[in-house]
Amino acid sequence: MSIAPFHPTPRTLMGPGPSDVHPQVLQALAKPTVGHLDPQFVAMMDEVKALIQYAFQTENPFTIAVSAPGSAGMETCFVNLVEPGDKVIVCRNGVFGERMRQNVVRVGGEAVVVDDAWGAPVSVDKVADALNRHPDAKFLAFVHAETSTGALSDAQALCALAQEHEVLSIVDAVTSLGGVELKVDEWGIDAIYSGSQKCLSCVPGLSPVSFSPRAVAKLEARQTPVPSWFLDQTLVMGYWAGTGKRSYHHTAPVNSLYALHESLRLLKEEGLENAWARHRAMHEKLKAGLDTLGLKFVVEEAHRLPQLNTVHIPEGIDDAAVRAALLNRFNLEIGAGLGDLAGKAWRIGLMGYAAREENVTLCLAALAQVMAEARR
Amino acid sequence: MSIAPFHPTPRTLMGPGPSDVHPQVLQALAKPTVGHLDPQFVAMMDEVKALIQYAFQTENPFTIAVSAPGSAGMETCFVNLVEPGDKVIVCRNGVFGERMRQNVVRVGGEAVVVDDAWGAPVSVDKVADALNRHPDAKFLAFVHAETSTGALSDAQALCALAQEHEVLSIVDAVTSLGGVELKVDEWGIDAIYSGSQKCLSCVPGLSPVSFSPRAVAKLEARQTPVPSWFLDQTLVMGYWAGTGKRSYHHTAPVNSLYALHESLRLLKEEGLENAWARHRAMHEKLKAGLDTLGLKFVVEEAHRLPQLNTVHIPEGIDDAAVRAALLNRFNLEIGAGLGDLAGKAWRIGLMGYAAREENVTLCLAALAQVMAEARR
Repeated sequence: MSIAPFHPTPRTLMGPGPSDVHPQVLQALAKPTVGHLDPQFVAMMDEVKALIQYAFQTENPFTIAVSAPGSAGMETCFVNLVEPGDKVIVCRNGVFGERMRQNVVRVGGEAVVVDDAWGAPVSVDKVADALNRHPDAKFLAFVHAETSTGALSDAQALCALAQEHEVLSIVDAVTSLGGVELKVDEWGIDAIYSGSQKCLSCVPGLSPVSFSPRAVAKLEARQTPVPSWFLDQTLVMGYWAGTGKRSYHHTAPVNSLYALHESLRLLKEEGLENAWARHRAMHEKLKAGLDTLGLKFVVEEAHRLPQLNTVHIPEGIDDAAVRAALLNRFNLEIGAGLGDLAGKAWRIGLMGYAAREENVTLCLAALAQVMAEARR
Repeated sequence: MSIAPFHPTPRTLMGPGPSDVHPQVLQALAKPTVGHLDPQFVAMMDEVKALIQYAFQTENPFTIAVSAPGSAGMETCFVNLVEPGDKVIVCRNGVFGERMRQNVVRVGGEAVVVDDAWGAPVSVDKVADALNRHPDAKFLAFVHAETSTGALSDAQALCALAQEHEVLSIVDAVTSLGGVELKVDEWGIDAIYSGSQKCLSCVPGLSPVSFSPRAVAKLEARQTPVPSWFLDQTLVMGYWAGTGKRSYHHTAPVNSLYALHESLRLLKEEGLENAWARHRAMHEKLKAGLDTLGLKFVVEEAHRLPQLNTVHIPEGIDDAAVRAALLNRFNLEIGAGLGDLAGKAWRIGLMGYAAREENVTLCLAALAQVMAEARR
């Protein structure tokens, strides 16, 4: 067995993530590795923390990057905050709401599921009703931007309900952060996680997380130890403390954090509002082209994510053949349907650095060619 | 707040890890990100799997890289294999044996601790005794190379005992893999984890893991669900299956896996036995110099790790001042003592790409200068 160095053919990444990584982020990634307790690295981690606070629009002191992908960020929230027996209202309108439910069950919590159709946003009315029916609930968990369907839910209204009923909110912002409006402090979000590989234009593998002081108080008042050692934030807090001596917990993924630093720096340089507007503008352009091609959106206009455009695959078109042609001839990746939408929809991402005019134009032109050929 | 791009001052990394990353590995890391389900990436993952099998010297079909650092690799073993009530003999001769014990407790297992002094190897006799006293034990867990002390334990003898008593062995090979002899199949190891950032010359953030068919059978026969969703290997197996369709579990850290691929490829190119011999040769050279400087090893000669040299800090020498001088004047990082050895020892790593003659010479010369100045 002889194995050659790997030289990937570059792709344009317009699926549900990972999305196109900014060239400066790849450069940052390859900078020389230094020790994870090196003073220069510790200072950089403080900047990463400040930049995540900016991206989330929060002043939460407990704001970190979990050293693992978004699913570990999700688990970080549930495993630290939800204790055995805690009741959690979980909103399920796609794959990731269901994953939240599984997290609740695995930590011994009781999940009360509020179901909405795939492609629909979370119903604020149904959640209000569930909160009324379950006055003993301790959490409300929902996905801000459902990556499996492209639906955006009203996080502000849902968090207002959570506050009214004095439950803590746990919000999945994996696909929303950097792509649409998100204001952690103003909306009163208690625990939030995201991923590096979507609208942040960074490589996959890290998960920004923030806990409000209320969430930290719940963690500190736990009656049982956090079941996971690796994700135990009472231990991790000492490492990300930001002041004074940093206590060793695990070896930080040094180079990935260089990349996250650069990607967040670029986001700050552009400005959050400008990034949101860019995603919106590119979405409008893509939408116009998809309309021309006769492709129909899965999600109603009012609830569509600009950064993730899910369209029905027309009758008679071979899903896999079209995606393979886009990939093999144009080096263009779009996403397949997931879960209930497998084989029935495409997910076209416009996330972070991928939300550029040349990408929209290439995608529409290539899709037009390939679909015309598929119909012949 | 304006944050500039981060340009780390390069260091020579001779601590307990992360160690010097091979330049080709950094280059591989920065290659263009592709989708985690892209056929070219899936093919590369198959190669990573084959290369981890080579490094571990195993044919275990269940051989993967966990998408998180070594501590998550440790947790992967315990959270999947140890069920509530399972009795685990845990050997503790440093920080990482204690961490194993904490993992056992958090998953609801019963830990029976076999203690040895910091700096000593795990006592095979004590383990034999513990196994005799606890015929209901289901696991034997120990650290092959204790990163906190620099002691090497006899993994072969310990695993032979485990097999004799029909318990499954769980082995921490974070610092041993690639640096000293390690033969998973020949020694009958059932579950093993390592880290990318030690003797593999790779960036931190990934954890190679392998389960024997016996360990997989234990996992498949579980009476309770794996408490962690992110680390549930019954789900991850579908992703790393290696044949046919790969089912989505989480987004793989694509670029970090490029780096691991290259680092393991370099290890295979050099040959495991040659890598072990190189670590041994560099250790001999370093040892001769440390002897000349009057520095005494914490670990007895027979049990010393060539890749991690722990020496007592001489009387009257200021630990922090010496390490700061090495770092600030020579850009050379050596490790502080950990746990019981904090402030009392230095840990000088010769791991992977760091185990080169120029590093040994620089370290000895710089240490001689700085110590002479500290004594003036």
